[in-house]
Amino acid sequence: MNLFTHTSHVEIQFGDCDPAGIVYYPNYFRYFDNATAALFSAAFGMNKRAWLERHGIAGIPMVDTGARFIKPGRFGDVVEIVSAITELGRSSFSVTHALSNGGEPAVEAHEKRVWVIKTADGSIKAAPLPDDVRRILGGQ
Amino acid sequence: MNLFTHTSHVEIQFGDCDPAGIVYYPNYFRYFDNATAALFSAAFGMNKRAWLERHGIAGIPMVDTGARFIKPGRFGDVVEIVSAITELGRSSFSVTHALSNGGEPAVEAHEKRVWVIKTADGSIKAAPLPDDVRRILGGQ
Amino acid sequence: MNLFTHTSHVEIQFGDCDPAGIVYYPNYFRYFDNATAALFSAAFGMNKRAWLERHGIAGIPMVDTGARFIKPGRFGDVVEIVSAITELGRSSFSVTHALSNGGEPAVEAHEKRVWVIKTADGSIKAAPLPDDVRRILGGQ
Amino acid sequence: MNLFTHTSHVEIQFGDCDPAGIVYYPNYFRYFDNATAALFSAAFGMNKRAWLERHGIAGIPMVDTGARFIKPGRFGDVVEIVSAITELGRSSFSVTHALSNGGEPAVEAHEKRVWVIKTADGSIKAAPLPDDVRRILGGQ
Repeated sequence: MNLFTHTSHVEIQFGDCDPAGIVYYPNYFRYFDNATAALFSAAFGMNKRAWLERHGIAGIPMVDTGARFIKPGRFGDVVEIVSAITELGRSSFSVTHALSNGGEPAVEAHEKRVWVIKTADGSIKAAPLPDDVRRILGGQ
Repeated sequence: MNLFTHTSHVEIQFGDCDPAGIVYYPNYFRYFDNATAALFSAAFGMNKRAWLERHGIAGIPMVDTGARFIKPGRFGDVVEIVSAITELGRSSFSVTHALSNGGEPAVEAHEKRVWVIKTADGSIKAAPLPDDVRRILGGQ
Repeated sequence: MNLFTHTSHVEIQFGDCDPAGIVYYPNYFRYFDNATAALFSAAFGMNKRAWLERHGIAGIPMVDTGARFIKPGRFGDVVEIVSAITELGRSSFSVTHALSNGGEPAVEAHEKRVWVIKTADGSIKAAPLPDDVRRILGGQ
Repeated sequence: MNLFTHTSHVEIQFGDCDPAGIVYYPNYFRYFDNATAALFSAAFGMNKRAWLERHGIAGIPMVDTGARFIKPGRFGDVVEIVSAITELGRSSFSVTHALSNGGEPAVEAHEKRVWVIKTADGSIKAAPLPDDVRRILGGQ
């Protein structure tokens, strides 16, 4: 089965880097969060605010994530992020991100998230992935 | 009339600094936003989430802010921020922040914010500062 | 005299917004810092790392900045930033940013920066704007 | 063998949270980076800038990190982070962070970093952990 993939590009900014002159690594997680949002936006054909509203969800919060840093990035570099859905559970799903810099692998990341709705009391709880979402993310 | 003032301290972190080794200036605005929250928390005797809920407001969004950078800050520096309410309008108010580093003036900032409530349709609008808030912020 | 202007676009991200659902305002300063970098990159035809190296400077640190927030931005919005050099001093210069959202003015900002070099002891000091930089920024 | 541990506290700020009202997860990695810096600062009895200079290193960049998010954090919460050195390699080392919120486990993270020096050409390379560093981190 082919799952949805999406490629995005980020120009590393001066302010994303630390006194060592390389990307301050928490910013890579920001890039990856944006890349997952971009994957969903490409899949659904609308921006994140629109797909949150369309599906009546509060978000897709992170349950587990990790990254391996292979090659440092510097401001001015334009990096490519290939993001792919790798697993579709009942209410959770997994995404991987392969970030390359100048054609070389630079960061590899994985994440597991849940599809959550707001409950009447304002808290959030996991909800099953709707069938149409599952169908859209499940193949290209 | 004496208006409320509050002093807070921030340790500048490695990741708050840029490749020039000094605080990436947008982070100063983060420090100042936290300092204004701390001033209100000190005034009201409760944390920001509690005082937002207590007063039924959506926040105190920024209308106008500015800063003058006198002396750069580096990670490891512990800076002091003296924050003061300088004006209490009908639904807006002004705050100044004097940030010193090693006893020397380093950044001077000012901000104008509004007291906003959520309307039935989910948007936000300015509301008058409640009398008790005005009284608490108006003097020490 | 016409001074250099540059237009850039930013998609507001989920993580750029705060619990009120609107852009956390320090992030606007990050957008503007990136916009000034983009203006210089467009003017010089190379990325920021390259123009810092090319001119042997440590950066263009902020001396004074301010912003007026007219209309809140939400994630999913793609905003336009028109950035313009408005003043070229001996070693300082000024930039304005007009950020519009959905065709309407949303944020107006101004900044004053200095052209700085690294001294032998590792500190930074203001240096005169080189003639070619002045010529490039001074007209289109 | 007992390895060095350190406990730090962070007040979650309004601006650290996203439109779902919970900590925007990349900020947890910022908290953890600060917590590792605080562990080293406690171990060495000096701030990060001082220990970088003292040991002539460019930093302790991240090689691999991951986090599991158990319970969301909200602004106003004061969280506790127990950080521990768990492995001391030749030039790399591992740290774990157990973040609790209101006495309950909220985030568990691990990281692997390297001790790096600046080479003559300005790039960075791994260097062996000095004996005194190893001794200080190796026990309390």
